[in-house]
Amino acid sequence: MIDNLIDRIKELENPTVVGLDPRLHFIPEYIKGEAYEKHGKTPRAAAEIFLEFNKVIIDNIYDLVPAIKPQVAMYEQFGAEGIQAYIDTIKYGKNKGLIIIGDVKRGDITSTAEAYADGHIGRVDIEGELHEIYMEDSITLNPYLGYDSIEPYMDHCKNYNRGLFILVKTSNPNSGEIQDLEVDGEKIYEKVGKLVDKWGQSLIGKYGYSSIGAVVGATHPAQAEELRSIMPNTYFLVPGYGAQGAAAKDLKGYFNKDGLGAIITHPEELLLPIIKKNIKINLVKKNLA
Amino acid sequence: MIDNLIDRIKELENPTVVGLDPRLHFIPEYIKGEAYEKHGKTPRAAAEIFLEFNKVIIDNIYDLVPAIKPQVAMYEQFGAEGIQAYIDTIKYGKNKGLIIIGDVKRGDITSTAEAYADGHIGRVDIEGELHEIYMEDSITLNPYLGYDSIEPYMDHCKNYNRGLFILVKTSNPNSGEIQDLEVDGEKIYEKVGKLVDKWGQSLIGKYGYSSIGAVVGATHPAQAEELRSIMPNTYFLVPGYGAQGAAAKDLKGYFNKDGLGAIITHPEELLLPIIKKNIKINLVKKNLA
Repeated sequence: MIDNLIDRIKELENPTVVGLDPRLHFIPEYIKGEAYEKHGKTPRAAAEIFLEFNKVIIDNIYDLVPAIKPQVAMYEQFGAEGIQAYIDTIKYGKNKGLIIIGDVKRGDITSTAEAYADGHIGRVDIEGELHEIYMEDSITLNPYLGYDSIEPYMDHCKNYNRGLFILVKTSNPNSGEIQDLEVDGEKIYEKVGKLVDKWGQSLIGKYGYSSIGAVVGATHPAQAEELRSIMPNTYFLVPGYGAQGAAAKDLKGYFNKDGLGAIITHPEELLLPIIKKNIKINLVKKNLA
Repeated sequence: MIDNLIDRIKELENPTVVGLDPRLHFIPEYIKGEAYEKHGKTPRAAAEIFLEFNKVIIDNIYDLVPAIKPQVAMYEQFGAEGIQAYIDTIKYGKNKGLIIIGDVKRGDITSTAEAYADGHIGRVDIEGELHEIYMEDSITLNPYLGYDSIEPYMDHCKNYNRGLFILVKTSNPNSGEIQDLEVDGEKIYEKVGKLVDKWGQSLIGKYGYSSIGAVVGATHPAQAEELRSIMPNTYFLVPGYGAQGAAAKDLKGYFNKDGLGAIITHPEELLLPIIKKNIKINLVKKNLA
């Protein structure tokens, strides 16, 4: 999976992924009106609106960025219809050649992790018949439960050419409450970072990076530089640019000397001008810093 | 929420919650046949089968136990139809008077946590119209991101009489990899335990327990006793009994002297005899140890 992602990053000279975290309040009226008329102000309408909005975004960016990252919570909150919009967004993006990073942040014990893994990046087995359900190319995971909560995903990564991004240092203000606690002179996020790099060793591709990546928030440039050096084979998925306060100049330390090693999340809110006025897209580009 | 749960535990003299983690391989043929005939071996059939199976379980236990705990992964893996079966299971259980603990283990940054909170234990707002979607009474959460990933749920707990169970020490074999790391002479799970007890102080009910509870695995009796003493106001949700190897005699230390303080998860697999032969249910009962 990581090789496909890097190939596209190189082709497009653009190491960004567009987040698809739709919220009704920022979606233009011209997209919302019809759905409300048909279905009222219902979860079904919200789900249709999200899918339509995402299609407009995808149509505008599919040949500029390598990947999209839908945040499942935004869809899940509207129940089954929301989940269907999440799945349909993924299908639409895949058909346009985009790589899909599902921001699901799941984390559970082995038997449960198997169900998540089968549904999201593998196949579910119904009496011997295999079905693909979500079809993300990669998903985010939470490491708090340890390796047996990650392991069920590893085989699917190998067998179906999928990947993971495991939370190491998140972008939110209280991320330090647990992640920055110090153990034998090392922070928890460093410990987790080393584990993630180790877990990924069996899935290293042609560029020297593993399909098992890490989430490292854009709001922590100092910690990112340090993590960069102790996780040489790990690709970073970097949220927190824009809305959460990180600026493009802070992002240099997330990359390696090869110009690779990180993909920056570009919030879709920054893309609203293209929806409203069809003006040129201002995406964070590679040589930003 | 915690008061309702304890009221029912006292009335029924039964501090157990039945897990609803259905898997096709253990569901009897008489429940599966019709769905496969109608829909083939499809996600839709799987979802219908899960709902039917859960109804049989619920019909047999609703007047014996206070609560059920559906594990969302088992449903989510089958996509939108699976999620609908999860929601319909919750509705069916609520109509029978059961308290619902949604085992979702979500954990994300503030804006995303708001979406999960609205959907699962609050209301989603569609242009001013409020909708209840999942309607769990309580859900499990992952604390790795710190308090701002928990806070969005707190108001809903107050306003809608809901609760949380936050992962402290999980039941799986690798749980120690991060949770047992030692910080200034204290394990991470102890640090998290103290945080959870602190976070819950504003939501303490008539029995002295908070609606903000903790997940403490049944496979760690020694750690549970220690956590019991440093988290006096926190109710424990205890998974890992049965399938994961913990025995009833290990569970005494999870309870306080008042006979309260813990609710033990009873795996539905142990209930299969009632489905197959309609024999008397052997639930873990209060004075087990």
